[in-house]
Amino acid sequence: MKITEIGEFGFIDAIKDDTLFAPESVVIGIGDDGAVYKTTDGMEQVAVIDTMVENSHFIIGTTASWYDVGYKAVASNLSDIAAMGAVPTHLVLSTAISPQMEVEDLISLYRGIKDICRTYQVNILGGDTVMSKEGLVITVAAFGEIEKTKAICRSGAKVGDIVAVSHCLGDSGAGLDVLLTRHAGYERLKRTHQFPVPQISLGRLLVEYHAHSLNDISDGLASEANEIAKASKVRLLLQKDRIPCSEELRAWSAETGKDIWTYVFNGGEDYELIFTIGTADFARLQRVYPEITMIGAVIAGEPGVYVQDGALQYQVLPSGWNHFSEEKR
Amino acid sequence: MKITEIGEFGFIDAIKDDTLFAPESVVIGIGDDGAVYKTTDGMEQVAVIDTMVENSHFIIGTTASWYDVGYKAVASNLSDIAAMGAVPTHLVLSTAISPQMEVEDLISLYRGIKDICRTYQVNILGGDTVMSKEGLVITVAAFGEIEKTKAICRSGAKVGDIVAVSHCLGDSGAGLDVLLTRHAGYERLKRTHQFPVPQISLGRLLVEYHAHSLNDISDGLASEANEIAKASKVRLLLQKDRIPCSEELRAWSAETGKDIWTYVFNGGEDYELIFTIGTADFARLQRVYPEITMIGAVIAGEPGVYVQDGALQYQVLPSGWNHFSEEKR
Repeated sequence: MKITEIGEFGFIDAIKDDTLFAPESVVIGIGDDGAVYKTTDGMEQVAVIDTMVENSHFIIGTTASWYDVGYKAVASNLSDIAAMGAVPTHLVLSTAISPQMEVEDLISLYRGIKDICRTYQVNILGGDTVMSKEGLVITVAAFGEIEKTKAICRSGAKVGDIVAVSHCLGDSGAGLDVLLTRHAGYERLKRTHQFPVPQISLGRLLVEYHAHSLNDISDGLASEANEIAKASKVRLLLQKDRIPCSEELRAWSAETGKDIWTYVFNGGEDYELIFTIGTADFARLQRVYPEITMIGAVIAGEPGVYVQDGALQYQVLPSGWNHFSEEKR
Repeated sequence: MKITEIGEFGFIDAIKDDTLFAPESVVIGIGDDGAVYKTTDGMEQVAVIDTMVENSHFIIGTTASWYDVGYKAVASNLSDIAAMGAVPTHLVLSTAISPQMEVEDLISLYRGIKDICRTYQVNILGGDTVMSKEGLVITVAAFGEIEKTKAICRSGAKVGDIVAVSHCLGDSGAGLDVLLTRHAGYERLKRTHQFPVPQISLGRLLVEYHAHSLNDISDGLASEANEIAKASKVRLLLQKDRIPCSEELRAWSAETGKDIWTYVFNGGEDYELIFTIGTADFARLQRVYPEITMIGAVIAGEPGVYVQDGALQYQVLPSGWNHFSEEKR
């Protein structure tokens, strides 16, 4: 059945249940002009927004199912909230859809949205659905809370800090290539691309352990590290051989000849965290959260990002590590 | 110059200034993963979201300029916040744009956004800009505040209430026709279509004067009145000859033969308010805010909306007043 056959109200009826997963803070949910919710005394609010466009961010049937699109549209927002050190609480969303879209596909999209919201106890407060002649455009605006003055910005990196990242980098970009080439296997890479994990619990620990700066890695390590360097007016020196990569990424690169470092530095959508933190705090944090790796240090100098690769040192520009200007160590 | 020539960061640099109009509540504005803001003790938060799609909601050069699109994308959200009785405070926005869009057009879009935000002291906290192969899609998510338990819902209408609306209805829909036919004159109608006024001050007065139910008229009187009737489980009986229409709307209808009541009941985007309120409170409110008109009453009976037209009474269905089932009085 097509969307036009059930109409907007039929559609709202089909998706309005099962939207509040932490209802105690919601005064008015879906169904009025606006939703009303309560905030917690002593907390500041965090707001983020992110859009995904069909055939630009995803290709249905190739890189994602409708379920995956809903899941990931929320995940990317929760990742931005994690990257401030905050806890996500609510979201509103808007979809521009073709009138010819199948109702069951839209239901599937919402199932993906609801499943990740249930996991992280995020309330769906409402939305807007409009018709578009073209493919689907989905925008999610998410809110979260953080203790007053505790949000971790990009601008706080200090000379002497350790630079660290969570888990492995590059899997999502490689997963996209696996999907686009319809290659068999490499389940971990595909899964990382389709179901990124917002690093909320690590973000909270980074607040507790006094991290100085923090970004989520949505556009590749090169871009995110440069954002921290620029905002903090410091230089980041990364050790190439310390950057954590998965066995599957190495296997994929070996099989296809694709450059592993292009995935790591330029591949998007890993949604891991990059942060800078004092040496003692890093050691304490690693005892409670071992899946973090020191990849470099914050040093003095003109702001920028450099990578140490054996005896060579390159500058890494935001657009990618291969646009480097070579320098002798 | 095209957007592709300045890139995302060039674009952010071009629009990031002049975004905070009530900065005292903003901790972190544009430029990090998320924005951080403070809420007011004792207040609840209101969240709304609304999307406009090029060639569906607006046609550049015919119904709107880029400036107008930015202005109206915010206005429709502020109207939703007004329709809860709340004060808008912040917004985040997302635009999906063609890489071929002219930079000056995008700057113009943002000028419209900033001008209405300045008027209503609403902070622009951040946004997302993505590329789309098709026309522009703009989504605004706005937040506001209201005193605890004071938000006015659709569901509070009581038998015995007066039904009232603000200003005049139907101008926006007629303005759209004036623009589409490139007809000379009718400045008021065109202006109402392009620069709707969110009824924030009236919304605040409706809280103070204890209105029982409230909607903004974004989809025509028929749809909005039915939403109140359905949510409140009451019947609304409207007096057709009391519904306020402008002289320009009457003149346009007289000149073109277009049905004035189709504009009033089905014409969208007036963004006036419809509310129900006790008789004494209505009289008190009218002394401080005269531009409201009683158009009917809340009566007992199966939920629905009826209109008294001379000796006849019709039911008005949500989709429009002309789909009525005739009934003898």
